[in-house]
Amino acid sequence: MNTETSNTRRTRAGGRAARLALRDSAPEVGRMPVRAGMEGGRYNPLSQDDLLAIHRAALDLLGSVGIGQATPEVIEIATARGCSVNTYGRLVFPPVLIEDLLAGAAREYVIYSRDPAYADLHVGGGRVHYATSGEAVSVLDFEARNYRPSTLQDVYDTARLVDALPNIHQYGQMVVPTEIEDLIEHDINVVYAVLSGTTKPVEHTFNTVASLPAALEIYAMIAGSEKKFRERPFVSFGGCPIVSPLRFAPESLDVLIATSRLGLVSDIAVAPQAGATAPAYLAGTLAQVVAETLACLAVVNMVRPGCPMSFAAWPFAVDLRTGSFSGGAAEVAVSMAAIAQIGRFYDLPTTVAASMSDAKMPDAQMGYEKGIASVVAGLAGANRVLESAGMMASLMGVSYEAMVIDNDMLGMAQRVVRGIEVSDETLSVDTIKAAVLGEGHFLGAADTLKSMQTEFHYPQIADRASVQVWTAEGAQTIGERARNVAADLLANHFPQAMDTAVDAAIRDRFPIRLPRERMRPVD
Amino acid sequence: MNTETSNTRRTRAGGRAARLALRDSAPEVGRMPVRAGMEGGRYNPLSQDDLLAIHRAALDLLGSVGIGQATPEVIEIATARGCSVNTYGRLVFPPVLIEDLLAGAAREYVIYSRDPAYADLHVGGGRVHYATSGEAVSVLDFEARNYRPSTLQDVYDTARLVDALPNIHQYGQMVVPTEIEDLIEHDINVVYAVLSGTTKPVEHTFNTVASLPAALEIYAMIAGSEKKFRERPFVSFGGCPIVSPLRFAPESLDVLIATSRLGLVSDIAVAPQAGATAPAYLAGTLAQVVAETLACLAVVNMVRPGCPMSFAAWPFAVDLRTGSFSGGAAEVAVSMAAIAQIGRFYDLPTTVAASMSDAKMPDAQMGYEKGIASVVAGLAGANRVLESAGMMASLMGVSYEAMVIDNDMLGMAQRVVRGIEVSDETLSVDTIKAAVLGEGHFLGAADTLKSMQTEFHYPQIADRASVQVWTAEGAQTIGERARNVAADLLANHFPQAMDTAVDAAIRDRFPIRLPRERMRPVD
Repeated sequence: MNTETSNTRRTRAGGRAARLALRDSAPEVGRMPVRAGMEGGRYNPLSQDDLLAIHRAALDLLGSVGIGQATPEVIEIATARGCSVNTYGRLVFPPVLIEDLLAGAAREYVIYSRDPAYADLHVGGGRVHYATSGEAVSVLDFEARNYRPSTLQDVYDTARLVDALPNIHQYGQMVVPTEIEDLIEHDINVVYAVLSGTTKPVEHTFNTVASLPAALEIYAMIAGSEKKFRERPFVSFGGCPIVSPLRFAPESLDVLIATSRLGLVSDIAVAPQAGATAPAYLAGTLAQVVAETLACLAVVNMVRPGCPMSFAAWPFAVDLRTGSFSGGAAEVAVSMAAIAQIGRFYDLPTTVAASMSDAKMPDAQMGYEKGIASVVAGLAGANRVLESAGMMASLMGVSYEAMVIDNDMLGMAQRVVRGIEVSDETLSVDTIKAAVLGEGHFLGAADTLKSMQTEFHYPQIADRASVQVWTAEGAQTIGERARNVAADLLANHFPQAMDTAVDAAIRDRFPIRLPRERMRPVD
Repeated sequence: MNTETSNTRRTRAGGRAARLALRDSAPEVGRMPVRAGMEGGRYNPLSQDDLLAIHRAALDLLGSVGIGQATPEVIEIATARGCSVNTYGRLVFPPVLIEDLLAGAAREYVIYSRDPAYADLHVGGGRVHYATSGEAVSVLDFEARNYRPSTLQDVYDTARLVDALPNIHQYGQMVVPTEIEDLIEHDINVVYAVLSGTTKPVEHTFNTVASLPAALEIYAMIAGSEKKFRERPFVSFGGCPIVSPLRFAPESLDVLIATSRLGLVSDIAVAPQAGATAPAYLAGTLAQVVAETLACLAVVNMVRPGCPMSFAAWPFAVDLRTGSFSGGAAEVAVSMAAIAQIGRFYDLPTTVAASMSDAKMPDAQMGYEKGIASVVAGLAGANRVLESAGMMASLMGVSYEAMVIDNDMLGMAQRVVRGIEVSDETLSVDTIKAAVLGEGHFLGAADTLKSMQTEFHYPQIADRASVQVWTAEGAQTIGERARNVAADLLANHFPQAMDTAVDAAIRDRFPIRLPRERMRPVD
């Protein structure tokens, strides 16, 4: 069909000057076309009966086979509350205890930004935020089309890039510094690199609970005191305390307990894979992952009732033709959306993992795998959508170009999540009547000028030019444009995320490996 | 996070032989992981109050400013039923008439395939189908990165490609033969090329009502008789009988009336553009497009009550920074989803336009724009999602490579739309208990073998290999793989869509331009 009506063509110059004048006057934050914390939940993959059936199946599992590999510490805490160890040595949770602990669990929590320009994350309700995460081990070389091992510099650089990309609301650790072998040195350097790269809310993971004291010192130095950090925590703490099916991972469980004792935000991931470490039926994987996540929630809430924590059930899947993990699969996307709904059913803050791609290059496959997964997670009301930018190659690698593209993709997803406001004003009946009997179009209408910065999301690098203009500008793909944008940001965007004196004090006290000269523009 | 658990690695060989044996035994059609006519509607962008407010606003517009440019024929038909012509010469529809005609409108219709291997489209309820359409004027040359004018050969070739792509359920005319100037000859050749290219249900558009008699002859020759065609129509009829805001397009209106008199499937598109030919507020565009579409529905149902017809409101948008049409915009995606819900509110069969891209190459932008739009349209329960494969460059061009990629994208979207079946069997509680106390994984479980062909959608060209395998196989993007697949299909896939004698008879009777030698493989 002809998409350019004669009206459009004839009157294009109509309100153009006025529109151009308005274009640069951005609206206040609360009226931005997309923003952190918009309300999701209009998509409900499961029925009420489905929700109850999954809940009952999870309680059945926790009350029968329970969870294996509980540490002595957890067994002591749990048996004091009515749990028992069965004949297989597995920790069994009575349904009534789970229901009790659910009733007292945190309904929401806040992860603060360190700059008023960035939103705090008020995690809970149906409020939707998008964040990175992933801890991949490699980074894409776009030109060479291959992956190299990730380094500490990449931790810092990915954080800087997220700092510059408005539709990503939190920086979660995207890569690991593969060059640092000592676990504590590794963890300390991650803390430093992340917090130097952005003042947005952050997330990272400890390899060992032994890193926690040093990390707390760094947080306190940055916040001004430990008390100030505890009042406005700007970090959430990742980890994988479950090995599916239905076993604890002792090292990660120790970290979970230590951070929970301190009341810090537990930001774990429980990640079974349908067909491999969970049933092939998606409903079965949901039942299992809910059981596993409720077990973690039970432990945290026994350690510290109401401790801030996400319902972080991540039902992944394998491709059963090969047995390999497939993060970009439709089955993962719909399962994560179901988890967002289950989290709303429990009235718990949720994190899900959506928008990972199995593609190796930032190509069309990456685009649709990420687009579909991220929009359904948001529509289902996931509070924090992790892994949502830059994650490639089935979570094995990160692409800087993908991060820049995903920022636009997430803008589109967020605009869909926001939905359509219907009111007497927005229904525009009088505006339509006036246009029909008057100019015959709406380009210069008062409502058009008024709403063009609030109703429409304008992507930063997506191409909407004519074929002629696109050709004249070099006929680039979005990947090629993103490569240039990423390179430009990495060369120039160096957030002043830490006070110079604090930075010096941290460097004095800890073996910081990131060279200071790599933290400012090259002359 | 580590996505390959030690379990996966250790036991990968476990059920592999059994899985490989099952892999090639495809399930019966009703148990395919994705299929035509799956139930949508779990996503509701609008509230009940929103729906009523939009309905009232549309009735207000139809009852006050009405629709301009009505033909004398339509004015005669409509005034006999209680419409009037106002002082501006515009045709005004009383609300009670619209409500009456809505009550008698067709609730569903069928577009038949000509081969039992392909699904008939039972259009109505919440059943979701994906189709092409678009009538673009150019085709992408992937290597040269430019667009050339489309030809009759492209009509035939795009139809052949759709014939081979299982996740596209109907071929709607994707391009126009720009080389044919005579309108009737143009239309006849489109009919022939489309019906030679595929036996799936089809859609095409007439330039002039004068083409209808010849086309009906061709349909009858293919079906065996006109009666047989009318009993199992395999064509729906496109057209744009509205010029927004709120005017009829007389030529297209004539076609609509002629096909409606015959009881053929009216498959129009009403396509205002928010910010240009409709209000910038999305709710206002919804109110206007609902009014415009109800006006067409009223005309059709006055001509022939209950005539099969879609509620085909297509709320498009422009980018207000430039005034240019943006088919890939988030605002279009969410508005089309809203229309699907409005169609369910009216209990009318719906078509929407989703999954057009503004990108020029089949890149990541194309992927996410299409992925987001197609999944939300399906989740909202659109009965036929048109423009859903191959449409590029803001509807100006088609890409064969994009069609092949979109087939995988639509498979993913459809798997999400299908959702998650929750039952005692799929909850897998006993399976989980057995795995936990037994093997510690599910790779060889009976349920895994049983469900691997029914629970999981496996893409045809999307890449899920390891980085190592991907590198060894040439480190290609999905665009490059799609180029090869498309070329292979175009060189080899020549459906025998017409009986040889029928083909000869049509060629005898009409000026068919498609050379017969281009309709079989090159030796």
